Amino acid sequence: MQAELIFTGTELLLGEVLNTHAQYLGRQMAAHGIEVILHTTVGDNWDRLAQVLKAALERADLIIVTGGLGPTTDDLTKDTVARVLGLPMVLDEPTLQWLREFMARRGTPVFESMARQAYFPAGARVLPNPVGTAPGALLEHQGKVVILLPGPPRELKAMFENSVVPYLASLGNPGMVTRTRLLKVTGISESEVQELIGDLGGQGNPGIAYVAQPGEVHVRISARAADGAAAEQMITGLLEKVRERLAGYLFGMDDDVLEEVVGRLLAQKGLTCALAESCTGGLTAARLTSVPGSSEYFLGSIVAYDNRVKEKVLGVPLETLQAHGAVSQQTAVAMAEGVRSLAGAHLGLSITGIAGPGGGTPAKPVGLTYIALAAPDGTSCREFHFPGHRQAVRQGAANAALNMIRLYLLARS
Amino acid sequence: MQAELIFTGTELLLGEVLNTHAQYLGRQMAAHGIEVILHTTVGDNWDRLAQVLKAALERADLIIVTGGLGPTTDDLTKDTVARVLGLPMVLDEPTLQWLREFMARRGTPVFESMARQAYFPAGARVLPNPVGTAPGALLEHQGKVVILLPGPPRELKAMFENSVVPYLASLGNPGMVTRTRLLKVTGISESEVQELIGDLGGQGNPGIAYVAQPGEVHVRISARAADGAAAEQMITGLLEKVRERLAGYLFGMDDDVLEEVVGRLLAQKGLTCALAESCTGGLTAARLTSVPGSSEYFLGSIVAYDNRVKEKVLGVPLETLQAHGAVSQQTAVAMAEGVRSLAGAHLGLSITGIAGPGGGTPAKPVGLTYIALAAPDGTSCREFHFPGHRQAVRQGAANAALNMIRLYLLARS
Repeated sequence: MQAELIFTGTELLLGEVLNTHAQYLGRQMAAHGIEVILHTTVGDNWDRLAQVLKAALERADLIIVTGGLGPTTDDLTKDTVARVLGLPMVLDEPTLQWLREFMARRGTPVFESMARQAYFPAGARVLPNPVGTAPGALLEHQGKVVILLPGPPRELKAMFENSVVPYLASLGNPGMVTRTRLLKVTGISESEVQELIGDLGGQGNPGIAYVAQPGEVHVRISARAADGAAAEQMITGLLEKVRERLAGYLFGMDDDVLEEVVGRLLAQKGLTCALAESCTGGLTAARLTSVPGSSEYFLGSIVAYDNRVKEKVLGVPLETLQAHGAVSQQTAVAMAEGVRSLAGAHLGLSITGIAGPGGGTPAKPVGLTYIALAAPDGTSCREFHFPGHRQAVRQGAANAALNMIRLYLLARS
Repeated sequence: MQAELIFTGTELLLGEVLNTHAQYLGRQMAAHGIEVILHTTVGDNWDRLAQVLKAALERADLIIVTGGLGPTTDDLTKDTVARVLGLPMVLDEPTLQWLREFMARRGTPVFESMARQAYFPAGARVLPNPVGTAPGALLEHQGKVVILLPGPPRELKAMFENSVVPYLASLGNPGMVTRTRLLKVTGISESEVQELIGDLGGQGNPGIAYVAQPGEVHVRISARAADGAAAEQMITGLLEKVRERLAGYLFGMDDDVLEEVVGRLLAQKGLTCALAESCTGGLTAARLTSVPGSSEYFLGSIVAYDNRVKEKVLGVPLETLQAHGAVSQQTAVAMAEGVRSLAGAHLGLSITGIAGPGGGTPAKPVGLTYIALAAPDGTSCREFHFPGHRQAVRQGAANAALNMIRLYLLARS
């Protein structure tokens, strides 16, 4: 089975938005053994979309179109598909009802423009949108399949996983399938990772690829084979070797996120933590609280951006700030111990550093960061030097801080 | 002048590599007034590349092809272009000489495969590669322009800036140029924006398009005309009308970011602010501190996730928490006034709500949020209902909170 992906949106042509759908859908289709032969990106120009769709229908069996399902007048994907396939647009009552209830919960009426989202090409299977108001659609028409997905990445992924994956599975397994595992490490650079495992493989089948993220590195192991079991078998051996070599840095696999890993460990041990953040400015707390249920183990954070807050709220002695400066081991330790007793938490974690671009000196350059962890069995502090621009330093510092909690908890398992 | 971009590489179809060329070249072309009408991504399949290239030559005046210029046998872009244009491949002596010297400096001979990089379609202008061994090429053929650029992003960018930009400039006014302005609004849904301005235009020239982001909506006004001045003129009138209708919600234009807009206003007025965050968990502080120099006006944030922190650090009366709950107007007001006096800030801003997925009740559903602003002239509080999943509620709340500061400062200008 051959497929084509069509991405709609002038913002993609203008480069205002990075097209991440191409990568996500590319991987998903490969994982399901469907060969993607072409990607096309077209602007909010419906004659051109019609041309592109006609050409795709001549080449491919399955076509996925993303974007243009919203309520506004530039959202015309469904109408265009209906026109090309020669189908009328019909109202889907259940969808309209669902929209009415959705809007009622928000206390706003259903505008005419919103109601447009309840119309679909005749015969379409409506794909519910678990995280938005624009439903998708799936059409089987004259031996071809056309699937319409919303543009917002979160909505597209949720709909793909809930509705499209089961459909693709129901088609049976057409050919070579790809399997991928992701190993996520932190506290080590991409080149250091390559030094450690580069000899185990690179391009090829199975293959190893690297993706550097701020503060972490993702190692992707992938294999292609006739069926999923064979591909997974090819991965397993290599995966074990890589896992062994990266053991000291590996914090998770696949969809794991560091803040979730840390949260699980805290919950398992029934421990609570509180933060005192300076250079990260709340970023570490924001990541910990992005996890549902984090109130079970996260008490709060004092974002002590100004020294008066460090002194007055966290109780950092004025002499410490004056003698050693806000970015120093002494201040980091006082912040960690201060927030631990203030919040009555088992663990107090502090971060103070120079995020830049300004504020650096030869003695204390941009990127210098101290992270301290105050625990029942004492306080430890580490010095870090994070490379890159302001956001990279902040993300690197937040990762290192979360990782310090992780390592502390693992060491006491 | 209309252009198409063709990206080659099976790794792009498989999603192994994120296609950043699409964004980089999209922005560059728009900046140089060249309308990009289509992006196509094709694998290392040279018959299909030939088909795609033929189709592009029928539609566009300028075609950029990326990738497939390297020394290996699957690098066949130049040969394919030559075949499609009916041109022979000829050796470029200077390039071969340059390759020999390049390899000599590395102490290795020029392999046969390397020498392939010195062959080009007859009549091609060779584009030097400042950071790699694979040169690019530019062909003017029967009124069309075809530009071949290398796949590695570093090489592509260097070659584009050194060779393609001057060429595009030398074309002078390439015909229809596009100008775009972005209006950014918050506190209003995409549908509501459409209700307000939908009658002013949609598709067409000038055109209006909408992009929804968590907590904000971007309205793009674009126009195409013979020259930049004419296109800007076409935008101006429409821009003013849209600006008027959205005035209550408009926070910025083009590259403006809400946290920067708020920061500029605070700095201009010489005011400081401090936050007390519950459901946003530090997200608002993280956004404010993502702006360089924010320490000038941002003192800190108390992320009071646990009620003990609300009570002990912010001084929210226990009775208030017990009588009205953590998510209530009374608690929001006490948090805002508490952090204002604690941090000694001009403005104290608090956010307390139910981010979900858990914790909602019929009386207090997920999304219910209270935001209070304590100022020298009194404290105000607003109730919000943010739709969507946990991250959307948190982003929406952070946007609304930042916007409350913005509106307060504007009202006192």
